[in-house]
Amino acid sequence: MNGLSLFKRASRAFDDYPSLAKLIVVCTVSGGGYVAYADANSSNGAHAVAPPVSEIRKKKVVVIGTGWAGTSFLKKLNNPSYDVQVISPRNYFAFTPLLPSVTCGTVEARSIVEPIRSIVRKGRVDWIYKSVSVSYCEAECFKIDAENKKVYCRPNPDSSMNGKEEFAVDYDYLVIAMGARPNTFNTPGVVEHCNFLKEVEDAQRIRRSVIDSFERASLPTLSDEERKRILHFVVVGGGPTGVEFAAELHDFVNDDLVKLYPAAKDFVQITILEAADHILNMFDKRITDFAEKKFHRDGIDVKLGSMVVKVSDKEISTKVRGNGGEITAIPYGMVVWSTGIGTHPVIRSFMQQIGQTNRRALATDEWLRVEGCNSIYALGDCATINQRKVMEDIAAIFKKADKDNSGTLTVKEFQEVIDDICERYPQVELYLKNKKMRDIADLLKMAKGDVAKEAIELNIEEFKKALSEVDSQMKNLPATAQVAAQQGTYLANCFNRMEEAEKNPEGPIRFREEGRHRFRPFRYKHLGQFAPLGGEQTAAQLPGDWVSIGHSSQWLWYSVYASKLVSWRTRALVITDWTRRFVFGRDSSRI
Amino acid sequence: MNGLSLFKRASRAFDDYPSLAKLIVVCTVSGGGYVAYADANSSNGAHAVAPPVSEIRKKKVVVIGTGWAGTSFLKKLNNPSYDVQVISPRNYFAFTPLLPSVTCGTVEARSIVEPIRSIVRKGRVDWIYKSVSVSYCEAECFKIDAENKKVYCRPNPDSSMNGKEEFAVDYDYLVIAMGARPNTFNTPGVVEHCNFLKEVEDAQRIRRSVIDSFERASLPTLSDEERKRILHFVVVGGGPTGVEFAAELHDFVNDDLVKLYPAAKDFVQITILEAADHILNMFDKRITDFAEKKFHRDGIDVKLGSMVVKVSDKEISTKVRGNGGEITAIPYGMVVWSTGIGTHPVIRSFMQQIGQTNRRALATDEWLRVEGCNSIYALGDCATINQRKVMEDIAAIFKKADKDNSGTLTVKEFQEVIDDICERYPQVELYLKNKKMRDIADLLKMAKGDVAKEAIELNIEEFKKALSEVDSQMKNLPATAQVAAQQGTYLANCFNRMEEAEKNPEGPIRFREEGRHRFRPFRYKHLGQFAPLGGEQTAAQLPGDWVSIGHSSQWLWYSVYASKLVSWRTRALVITDWTRRFVFGRDSSRI
Repeated sequence: MNGLSLFKRASRAFDDYPSLAKLIVVCTVSGGGYVAYADANSSNGAHAVAPPVSEIRKKKVVVIGTGWAGTSFLKKLNNPSYDVQVISPRNYFAFTPLLPSVTCGTVEARSIVEPIRSIVRKGRVDWIYKSVSVSYCEAECFKIDAENKKVYCRPNPDSSMNGKEEFAVDYDYLVIAMGARPNTFNTPGVVEHCNFLKEVEDAQRIRRSVIDSFERASLPTLSDEERKRILHFVVVGGGPTGVEFAAELHDFVNDDLVKLYPAAKDFVQITILEAADHILNMFDKRITDFAEKKFHRDGIDVKLGSMVVKVSDKEISTKVRGNGGEITAIPYGMVVWSTGIGTHPVIRSFMQQIGQTNRRALATDEWLRVEGCNSIYALGDCATINQRKVMEDIAAIFKKADKDNSGTLTVKEFQEVIDDICERYPQVELYLKNKKMRDIADLLKMAKGDVAKEAIELNIEEFKKALSEVDSQMKNLPATAQVAAQQGTYLANCFNRMEEAEKNPEGPIRFREEGRHRFRPFRYKHLGQFAPLGGEQTAAQLPGDWVSIGHSSQWLWYSVYASKLVSWRTRALVITDWTRRFVFGRDSSRI
Repeated sequence: MNGLSLFKRASRAFDDYPSLAKLIVVCTVSGGGYVAYADANSSNGAHAVAPPVSEIRKKKVVVIGTGWAGTSFLKKLNNPSYDVQVISPRNYFAFTPLLPSVTCGTVEARSIVEPIRSIVRKGRVDWIYKSVSVSYCEAECFKIDAENKKVYCRPNPDSSMNGKEEFAVDYDYLVIAMGARPNTFNTPGVVEHCNFLKEVEDAQRIRRSVIDSFERASLPTLSDEERKRILHFVVVGGGPTGVEFAAELHDFVNDDLVKLYPAAKDFVQITILEAADHILNMFDKRITDFAEKKFHRDGIDVKLGSMVVKVSDKEISTKVRGNGGEITAIPYGMVVWSTGIGTHPVIRSFMQQIGQTNRRALATDEWLRVEGCNSIYALGDCATINQRKVMEDIAAIFKKADKDNSGTLTVKEFQEVIDDICERYPQVELYLKNKKMRDIADLLKMAKGDVAKEAIELNIEEFKKALSEVDSQMKNLPATAQVAAQQGTYLANCFNRMEEAEKNPEGPIRFREEGRHRFRPFRYKHLGQFAPLGGEQTAAQLPGDWVSIGHSSQWLWYSVYASKLVSWRTRALVITDWTRRFVFGRDSSRI
């Protein structure tokens, strides 16, 4: 009996000696190893949110959304002079890059989520002396009132507890990180008949639908044609999500389902419909080629140049480019629609309110401040950075740089401001890099012809000419988790140093006004991107055009994703899931 | 790179050498240890269902239901002369005793289910030389036609694939194992407002509702009174399921939720409403006492003698016994209704068809054959065994025993048939045991007074008198997983030996007819019962009135449940879940 009560004794030890609060469990599973590590905080940790710093009134920061942007903001924010209120209908953060794995049960839904309350609490306990008071509210924001500094909310409509009372929350600073919606391009029938793959619930629904299809196709009443229709899985959109889902589904069917549904094997078909010329077209050509060839070998039908024009309950109609606009109707059993992102209705109406129309997302400046609003920040998929063009400010830049007001700019004068220019206008640096220019003098030379470096002196017109091309280097950031997470971290760092930066600005010179910017503008650092292609093979495109495809990249993928997971809990669970999948296969129970 | 590709190489090894098909992974987790063991069958195993035994026409066995009874029947059936068709809306078997653990995330839903197709396939591969052809169909039986030997089915209505075509399945033998429904006693409002706890989906729904309640109570708009209502969890029924749920919920709230929702602590209340005088009243008095005291200490309000008369959306009305029939309305946030079982509509209409009215479940004889039907068997919660009374057959027994037709029975004559009597009428043995009689002679003495054993000779009237009390020992079997599983195994064994037993009957003498019964009647062997009470304490009542309460029983519970799980996969998952719960706590994400 005593020997058995290890659990009991260990758990008592936790209560008695809070210093034992870190428990390390090492599990060696099938040759690999992982370390599960628990923040077994004693319960009083939860109450330690009252800040030790006393202040007249804390600034109230309202954060809308608990996705990548919102969560990374919350994790990094550690300035106790804020009172933070988080509003989101999802009380958890989901590690979305693993969503395609959830659709087929390679990873369980619960393994990739972490309650936002526990993320927020953990951060607080570690930095107890500079704790921020964060409270969370499971509600949906349905209106933003920038004029009165209020957001209007209602309880999560998906909740089983009925309650509809709306309420308003005041803010001093508003951080909008609501993410985006799937983009249907207003194609008829998409909302009614297609599955999306943006939320955890979507992935769970797809998983159930796949099993349902196999069960349905096994019923005795059906014709073979009907079976074929039901087991035809169509993926619309050949981006990373759609491709990964198709690959996962192919593995699920071939590794697991054919064993349990041997008769279904001959009827299964997976099709990817892509409107462009290639799938994965944001990736390197080598990856695209490899993926298309692999899918061809795997029997996944990739239809390029196919635009979906209509979806009915049993057929999907496509228009193939170069086919004289002829419309083909393909019978299907299930469609997953993953063609890009659209705007949230709340964001759309807010954009109208502040005069930002005809845009897909909220325009912000390089400091993530929403254009035309005070104290409102937007980040992640619901926002785009509206980069300032050099040409718009060219006169001001010239004036600032021309310190002696001579009307001409020497290389020396220009060199003094070039760092500020490059910081304020990242396109300049990009342009130099792409044109393989060593330094700014080369740029100026272009406008002046072949003269000695010291002799270069430009007037305003020549200066304009020299910089006329740089704005072509501006491009929008992709709508990825990586961008959102970096923006969240950036903004939290700004908030943390708000007061210091007011006194000692850190940013570049303000060219059109006096002084310096408080902060450096946001700069995205691309760390690479993965495209898992199934069969334990992954394509990886890393910075510096480094491309790696195959089993080794799959292992890189495993390691990177395991390390990027939000908590030790999710890390342990995901690794357990991978192991379980390897040992036992994926589960096909309909739950 | 080579070092990393262990997964890859191991998985190739599997393909290349099918003899490597057993992979043993030993994980030592927090001092305890478990062995995960995979039947990594090569995929051709699945096609090996074509029986090697050729026959003119196989008998078709239709099994309705994939619960405890149906699954244990399928697992044990190994006679290749049957062609088995399984029909159930659930394509998995669920380990129901762990359902209360699923409601609070101590164990994940997916860890306690196993696809029925893989259960059926695994069994087949092991006994390949005597394989039974089993096929499964995800459908709901809505009508049984005993006259034409047909069951009528329709596709699972919960499936996302729409399809409503009904179809009929013929059978030679029908095994009804559909289980039961929750019993609402026709209390108004129960179906609309209460949660049940019979299916995996119920447990998942309860889990979400608990989180929803805590999130809802954290919204800023509510009054404290409203918060108190929302966090009032009511359990109706003090049986093992209700009690275990209340205990799990109490642990969930106190171990995990109070850390994340510190403000909610003062508002939470758990109440158990039990109509009888005690909770757990099928258990020993010591267990009942312990449970009631523990719950009192834990702050769980146990209201005994409270009958629920009505449930509205926010209030539950009870009538307390001995209170003059006064009705009290209690505000609540969530109700879990677990008061016992009722009849499935299909079973009810089938009972009407075969003239079994006014019963809760299908009446069968001791061989699990439905009374009044040929070739139909019923087992598990949808059936009750209608035990034969000794007094009904008393004349026939007397006649059979009185071999010399003397009109009187000697002890010797009686001793020759007593084994058959005890086997046919288990109540006789029970009666002897309860009355502490050594042997049958004691019983006969009662009718004859104090005479020497050899001199006893009884006429029919005296014989009747001697046995007049034994039928009082008959009692119905409880509606538990244990009974259902034993019935399934019993019936499979009968089916396996059907032909042999036809030639060499194994059962007792037929008293009313000639010859012997083909099989021994079903006998239930009670192996004990657990009642987990929370805080790592469990009450166990084992055979022989052995009662154990506390932490050691919790460990017994862990071991027994882990060993009883249906597959190595579920075993590994449940043990992982328990470990995870211990290390990281339960998850409170709303998914």
